[in-house]
Amino acid sequence: MKKIILPLIATMLIITSTEAQMLDSFNIKRLSDEILKNGMAYDNLRVLCKEIGPRLSGSAQAQKAVEATAIMLKKAGADTVFLQPCMVPHWVRGEKEKGRVLLEKNQAFDLKLCALGNSEGTGVKGLTAEVMEINSFDELEKYGADSIKGRIVFYNIPMNPTNVQTFRSYGETGSIRTRGPARAAKYGAAAVLVRSLASNADDYPHTGTTLYNDSFPKIPAFAISTNDADRLSIELTTHEKVKVFLRNTSTMLEDAPSFNVVGEIKGSQFPNEYITVGGHLDSWDLAEGAQDDGTGCMQSIEILRAFKALNIKPSRSIRAVMYMNEENGGRGGKAYLDWAKANNETHLFALESDAGGFTPRAFGFTATAEQLKKIVQWKNLFLPYGVYELNMGGGGSDISPLKELGTVLAGLSPDSQRYFDLHHAATDTFEAVSKRELLLGAVNMAALIYLVDKYGL
Amino acid sequence: MKKIILPLIATMLIITSTEAQMLDSFNIKRLSDEILKNGMAYDNLRVLCKEIGPRLSGSAQAQKAVEATAIMLKKAGADTVFLQPCMVPHWVRGEKEKGRVLLEKNQAFDLKLCALGNSEGTGVKGLTAEVMEINSFDELEKYGADSIKGRIVFYNIPMNPTNVQTFRSYGETGSIRTRGPARAAKYGAAAVLVRSLASNADDYPHTGTTLYNDSFPKIPAFAISTNDADRLSIELTTHEKVKVFLRNTSTMLEDAPSFNVVGEIKGSQFPNEYITVGGHLDSWDLAEGAQDDGTGCMQSIEILRAFKALNIKPSRSIRAVMYMNEENGGRGGKAYLDWAKANNETHLFALESDAGGFTPRAFGFTATAEQLKKIVQWKNLFLPYGVYELNMGGGGSDISPLKELGTVLAGLSPDSQRYFDLHHAATDTFEAVSKRELLLGAVNMAALIYLVDKYGL
Repeated sequence: MKKIILPLIATMLIITSTEAQMLDSFNIKRLSDEILKNGMAYDNLRVLCKEIGPRLSGSAQAQKAVEATAIMLKKAGADTVFLQPCMVPHWVRGEKEKGRVLLEKNQAFDLKLCALGNSEGTGVKGLTAEVMEINSFDELEKYGADSIKGRIVFYNIPMNPTNVQTFRSYGETGSIRTRGPARAAKYGAAAVLVRSLASNADDYPHTGTTLYNDSFPKIPAFAISTNDADRLSIELTTHEKVKVFLRNTSTMLEDAPSFNVVGEIKGSQFPNEYITVGGHLDSWDLAEGAQDDGTGCMQSIEILRAFKALNIKPSRSIRAVMYMNEENGGRGGKAYLDWAKANNETHLFALESDAGGFTPRAFGFTATAEQLKKIVQWKNLFLPYGVYELNMGGGGSDISPLKELGTVLAGLSPDSQRYFDLHHAATDTFEAVSKRELLLGAVNMAALIYLVDKYGL
Repeated sequence: MKKIILPLIATMLIITSTEAQMLDSFNIKRLSDEILKNGMAYDNLRVLCKEIGPRLSGSAQAQKAVEATAIMLKKAGADTVFLQPCMVPHWVRGEKEKGRVLLEKNQAFDLKLCALGNSEGTGVKGLTAEVMEINSFDELEKYGADSIKGRIVFYNIPMNPTNVQTFRSYGETGSIRTRGPARAAKYGAAAVLVRSLASNADDYPHTGTTLYNDSFPKIPAFAISTNDADRLSIELTTHEKVKVFLRNTSTMLEDAPSFNVVGEIKGSQFPNEYITVGGHLDSWDLAEGAQDDGTGCMQSIEILRAFKALNIKPSRSIRAVMYMNEENGGRGGKAYLDWAKANNETHLFALESDAGGFTPRAFGFTATAEQLKKIVQWKNLFLPYGVYELNMGGGGSDISPLKELGTVLAGLSPDSQRYFDLHHAATDTFEAVSKRELLLGAVNMAALIYLVDKYGL
């Protein structure tokens, strides 16, 4: 009899597993329909971008965004909404920056530029110095203090267009902005101009954090538009000596009080086991922070809304978190970890959406091989909604502190082709977001949260 | 010895096949780097959209586009460039259309509307009639002539937002625009308003072809914006009687002479065996025809350019074809078939890009199961460039006549979430195209052409 019984059991198990997958598929379709039909993420994003706008940490708008998203979370049906206090760096740009290229014979032209985040000011009178182009850190080292002292270093390093994954190019070139000013300061540079980290040719400077080194002076640092970088580079080949006048009144003030905003659905079986989904609420001051990262915040609220609208009762507690201060300090992410530890919370899984609200393509995971193997079994459930890869490697700045707790981390990877056209620039506006793309991201995120809650990790 | 020899041979075959795949991978990377770094498709598209603009069949701009793309193909390095003559329908919109909703007590508001393509005019005086909302063809049939005669039928059927594939929703709702006016004419309707086939809520009417039925009168037919459709629908629930004034002076003229534009690289081994890649050059008159289908044309030219720049010499002859008159007649596609037959050409494969220049996701094929099986083996070669599905089913309107010759057909399927926000509307402009997305489409198309040329089908 054995030979007959075993296949029967196997068949029964297969049917059960198929039925389970059919049920999952059905529930994910329900989530998708609900979100694509009744989703509020786009309308909420309009409020965040158009009624509040730029919301740099420490600003009045950042505080308005805290209050507005707390209301959105309540409207979405969160069981509880609360704020997690954190102190944040408070950098202010000051007056509109000025940059003017001074050629021979009184020829001159203005640069489209902006101070990098956290940059020191030039003083109200500004500064004028000769500019020199540098195309790599190796080149910087070769020049050394003799050539660099007293000059303005102009880093002109384009993002590599041949990487299909634009985040890879950003990774390759990003240290020019974050470390370039400090490295030039080491050799006595007067100031730094950085070619904007942008994937397109246009007239908008892209800001972003620069990190000073306490061993060297904090010199003023600016981003210039890619078009102006090209123009300046040409001028440098045709003129023997090119000077630049620079002026900014940026300054770092005392740390300011702020908050993460958290909305929660209480878990029906394991209320102290948390699944977190979030984005960061702060944005650069030049942009509406639509794709970076209004979309991630609004998607996270949307997931709570959809669960509530469909009366899906998760086993674990699910939190939508709007992290504060991702852009120039990461204090919200740390505050979230501190809160978790202080309250002895168990954090099973944390998902972040901070790569734009474009059509989703993949999720990346920081997990064990065993855990990833389990996750990859869900692949077919995502395929109808655009996600076709579940890969090792991923997360997000705000959730990375949770690694300390052994939490499995994940990041949504949407299509990245347009992201660095607008990243940290004035072009990152509500109009640059597609409603359907935004909602489709939320659909896939909701599906992942649903599966992790149901099956654990 | 047999048992030893067989695995050895198998191993040798595996190594050879791996090496071949490595070479293919290397050559596709070369194509990708060339296109992403030096691609001209975006600059060419700017010329097409900004210097020429809308190019409806029979218009002076369509002729300018013929001349401009012939020059682009020569600059791309085509061995030969030639024109294939075809007669095309010549519809003209006439004066800007007027639509005004007349409520009780002298209340009124203007509609954002446009005549559907091929629509008859109202006459210069326009017409005024009572409007009735219809939500399906079933409802139309139920009302019948008694209710419909002398009235304006307002089809108010939104695209279904819950389909992830927007082309599916377009397919489900499209017949309202193409067949709706003729079906209402059967019951004596005075005119038809169609809710724009659009995936978003905005103020732009989306035009597109409507098809009359010779058995019934050709009544004027218009598209109204989705916002106005919503507003009109509300007015109809709150007012007992709503009239609409409509005026358009559209008219169908005599067929006009026009051309397909063809650029060719002569095959080194099988010059009479053709591989075709193309898009359609004509566009609706309200739009710059950027995503529909300037992008497909410019990608096709780009493939020739990249092959020539890298000195890749295909075995078969490769043609980039700018088809004329896809939008309101399909005459270019038919002319291409006639030319192929008249010249006894063998057509192995035809690829069309006519779903927008967004990031590519898939190719769909009209092929035998055997052929598809061969194609699917190439899947891993596409994965790094964004295409992850090679499916049965696909092609394009312009290449579909080639089915008669047994040609394998394929269509590029880019991400479709944004397409119907702008399809056939004034918002289909150069600015709506991302350079990187456009070029990435060309990369995948070039890879497919390269593989089909190398391995046959």
